[in-house]
Amino acid sequence: MCELLGMSANVPTDICFSLTGLVQRGGHTGPHRDGWGVTFYEGKGCRSFKDPAPSAESIIAKMVLDYPIKSCAVISHIRQANRGGVSLENTHPFTRELWGQNWTYAHNGQLRGYKKLDTGFYRPIGQTDSEWVFCWILEQLRKRYSRRPGQMNAVFSFVASLADELRALGVFNMLLSNGDYVMAYCSNNLHWITRRAPFGQARLQDADVTVDFQTQTTPDDVVTVVATQPLTCNENWHKMVPGEFALFRLGELCLSRVMN
Amino acid sequence: MCELLGMSANVPTDICFSLTGLVQRGGHTGPHRDGWGVTFYEGKGCRSFKDPAPSAESIIAKMVLDYPIKSCAVISHIRQANRGGVSLENTHPFTRELWGQNWTYAHNGQLRGYKKLDTGFYRPIGQTDSEWVFCWILEQLRKRYSRRPGQMNAVFSFVASLADELRALGVFNMLLSNGDYVMAYCSNNLHWITRRAPFGQARLQDADVTVDFQTQTTPDDVVTVVATQPLTCNENWHKMVPGEFALFRLGELCLSRVMN
Repeated sequence: MCELLGMSANVPTDICFSLTGLVQRGGHTGPHRDGWGVTFYEGKGCRSFKDPAPSAESIIAKMVLDYPIKSCAVISHIRQANRGGVSLENTHPFTRELWGQNWTYAHNGQLRGYKKLDTGFYRPIGQTDSEWVFCWILEQLRKRYSRRPGQMNAVFSFVASLADELRALGVFNMLLSNGDYVMAYCSNNLHWITRRAPFGQARLQDADVTVDFQTQTTPDDVVTVVATQPLTCNENWHKMVPGEFALFRLGELCLSRVMN
Repeated sequence: MCELLGMSANVPTDICFSLTGLVQRGGHTGPHRDGWGVTFYEGKGCRSFKDPAPSAESIIAKMVLDYPIKSCAVISHIRQANRGGVSLENTHPFTRELWGQNWTYAHNGQLRGYKKLDTGFYRPIGQTDSEWVFCWILEQLRKRYSRRPGQMNAVFSFVASLADELRALGVFNMLLSNGDYVMAYCSNNLHWITRRAPFGQARLQDADVTVDFQTQTTPDDVVTVVATQPLTCNENWHKMVPGEFALFRLGELCLSRVMN
């Protein structure tokens, strides 16, 4: 399996604290040795740093942590391979263009029978179930909306209905972003937390690191972090239930659904 | 204008020597201060490092030079903006998927009337003429070949005919790769050199750096470097003429054409 990390914020924020915790799980405190990646949005552009090497030993991970890139939307992933070998083309996150926007996606879980899903225009490059179903999701969006719709809540609700179908094929925890919104879909394992004033201290679970957010923020900052497992040990994370999805924009929860 | 750098090699080779020269031109020995980027292929995957900051001052450029990524196909670009502001989404190289492969492209020049070109499925994300015509090229390839053809020489000859059309709209020097092939198209300014045994010494034009390739290679290595301007001052670079294109695979020239 793998671990996911996402962030949505109303001001460009660095994700170094959370990422410091996550990369430890890539070969140090966790078994996710088969690569890692992170995508930062900056305006309409985004940049990804990826390495098929374990994140805990990655020179690129060290550079990303040393050179804090500030962003309002981030998707990250550390991998423990199941479907698809350890290689760069199988390393999440995956980014593709839809409606003139960069769409970025990462998946945790494993699916059966996914090759029956028609990816249409979007052809998988690597061998993972994850990339295959990402292509399928984008193809479905493209078929339903030939151009970018004004109502993005409806778009992400539709994505959630696709994710419900995928969850029937196995385990499908997912993060998805177009740079503006960050969507989290829970199949069995996903948590989130929104931090806002008054900010306090947070202590990482996976490294002896504590941060006092009050010294790094202004009173108006709102930052949501989504992660497979809580990254801190002294805060209350919201545990998502199977079939739940949550949509964040500028750090705030703007849409959510819990399956009945 | 901008400067291009590409590499094709028959063994994974680092491009640090050439890149060291190029990044100097991004704000130090040259005026190309508006961002830079480099894409390395590894198998079917590729990874890009991009920065809208001047390459000569970029922390990411320093990391890329300190951590030599070895690759058989590389595309790099330093930018002096003309069309499109200085931002990440306007920073070359651009990568899109076609036929289940990553296609990577960088452009030097400026075009008029390009917005009449129908990009079809591929929508530009940024505001550059460069990305627009890249989308158009991919759309034309897709229309002509619904799946990946066996004869790639024919594919790149077709791309050259598209490039001929673009050259009529202004200046269009281009590098294009699918990870296997590296294509260079010259509108007015592009040079290449193939290095093979017996290897000698090379001295950069833009920095006080000399390398003895003999100490870094085996006798079977073949490495071609393509650049807007020769990067070394003691080697003979092939100067391409307007309308010339050259296709490289595993370091070797495999197809070329000079306009009559």
